Amino acid sequence: MELIDGHRIAAEIISELKAEVAALPGRKPCLALVRVGEDPASVSYVRQKEKTAVEIGIVGRVLLPPATISPAELFGLIEQLSADPAIDGILVQSPLPPHLDELAVFRRIAPAKDVDGLGTINFGKIAQEDESGFVPCTPAGILELLTRSGVQLAGRHVVVLGRSLLVGKPVALLAVQKKAWANATVTLCHSQTVGLPALARLADILIAAIGRPEFVTAEMVKPGAVVIDVGINRVPDSTKKSGYRLVGDVHFPSVAPIASRITPVPGGVGPMTVAMLMKNTVKAHRQSRAT
Amino acid sequence: MELIDGHRIAAEIISELKAEVAALPGRKPCLALVRVGEDPASVSYVRQKEKTAVEIGIVGRVLLPPATISPAELFGLIEQLSADPAIDGILVQSPLPPHLDELAVFRRIAPAKDVDGLGTINFGKIAQEDESGFVPCTPAGILELLTRSGVQLAGRHVVVLGRSLLVGKPVALLAVQKKAWANATVTLCHSQTVGLPALARLADILIAAIGRPEFVTAEMVKPGAVVIDVGINRVPDSTKKSGYRLVGDVHFPSVAPIASRITPVPGGVGPMTVAMLMKNTVKAHRQSRAT
Repeated sequence: MELIDGHRIAAEIISELKAEVAALPGRKPCLALVRVGEDPASVSYVRQKEKTAVEIGIVGRVLLPPATISPAELFGLIEQLSADPAIDGILVQSPLPPHLDELAVFRRIAPAKDVDGLGTINFGKIAQEDESGFVPCTPAGILELLTRSGVQLAGRHVVVLGRSLLVGKPVALLAVQKKAWANATVTLCHSQTVGLPALARLADILIAAIGRPEFVTAEMVKPGAVVIDVGINRVPDSTKKSGYRLVGDVHFPSVAPIASRITPVPGGVGPMTVAMLMKNTVKAHRQSRAT
Repeated sequence: MELIDGHRIAAEIISELKAEVAALPGRKPCLALVRVGEDPASVSYVRQKEKTAVEIGIVGRVLLPPATISPAELFGLIEQLSADPAIDGILVQSPLPPHLDELAVFRRIAPAKDVDGLGTINFGKIAQEDESGFVPCTPAGILELLTRSGVQLAGRHVVVLGRSLLVGKPVALLAVQKKAWANATVTLCHSQTVGLPALARLADILIAAIGRPEFVTAEMVKPGAVVIDVGINRVPDSTKKSGYRLVGDVHFPSVAPIASRITPVPGGVGPMTVAMLMKNTVKAHRQSRAT
């Protein structure tokens, strides 16, 4: 079994982007990071995104509207950022306070700046296999992990556990594309699937994004399969100072010995998302200069 | 084995729409049908769509630009129709002459009038499970055939053969939706799939949209499966006056005896597409009045 090291691959991408940005003439790419309110996880995520942006040479512009902002005010802010020619990418950190409709907010972002890829047009472009679009960071990161680990998808069976808009559906649509790096056969399973273990066992590449701690056990995995664990779950652990530990959707101790390659949690898919956000931002910048 | 009768179900839908339109106060729904050039199949399709529209009480407005129309002129025409408040739906008949980029043309149609569902936003809405969008007529027709035949999708395994933008991908995304009428597990197979017969045999519901005459034979079908045949292929037949006969993607004589239900070709999915176009047009009208 070989570990797929998300930290190493993310660092590789970041270093490539750094070189690309350093070589850019004129204005550097600029990413607007909008964080509504003071959700502690969001504070930490946005800080990390800003830090990585700066490391690459991307200008990070952080906007911190209060949790009490009205939908109309937030829409106004997003429209202003969308119209600002100095800004290439816009990220609105999820989750938003409950009075704000996330999908409606994401849809307000100009598609050409929607570097988180959560708007309607960028989803449609995945289905249309239009590479001018932005793929959401988690599925983009999964494909990048597979490609950079030398895992071929063509003709192989990818089984995706979980049909979320953020992971399951886009990763399925990407893996099945008529592209040399894709061309996989795809099965999409979820909470209503009957006989899930037998279907999971068909997978040459198993992608677990179902949000249940250590759900995938050894008997659901074909020996030699590649296993990508997208889950990040907190489970109580009295031996830890924090009182919990992080586990994925895969029961790592039993699955790792039979997988050919596997991502750990943490340190697998997680580190890739920030790198892919930066990659999308540099792409948005490149495309805006080309028009 | 029970035959799923597309003609009967389409007639049922058309009669429901007729009643709905008759009860509408004020302006009737209006569908613009744009046919570029004189492709014989397109002439016949557009004529049939206009006839069905009129039967329902929908105003059909047929526009017949010449095959020599420039992209800019066609875009101009579509923008004019998109802006016209008297028009609810716009259909541009495919195929277009080779100098016109179909996807670029479809994308010019205002999403709220894109009743053929081929623009980027309406695809994104399928992924987002947003029911305000328009589903392309063939996948919408397939789902309607299944639902009106009493075939439950929830928890069942739908195997789709073919990953086209017009059929395979949208029908897969629809069947997997978190909706009471969907909730299926979905496998998407295509020309690059390894071991397709064994995967097809897993299907409780097999949807063949691969464009190869009589490709699906009995050994690819689980006894008792529901089989939906989307293919329409001409094969030479010297016993016919026309010199050919129409066959589907399914070898009907061998598959029909083991299927629990099956669509014939012709007379299965085919008749549904026009009915679904009309259903989308009436929906566009309803939504435009609501705003």
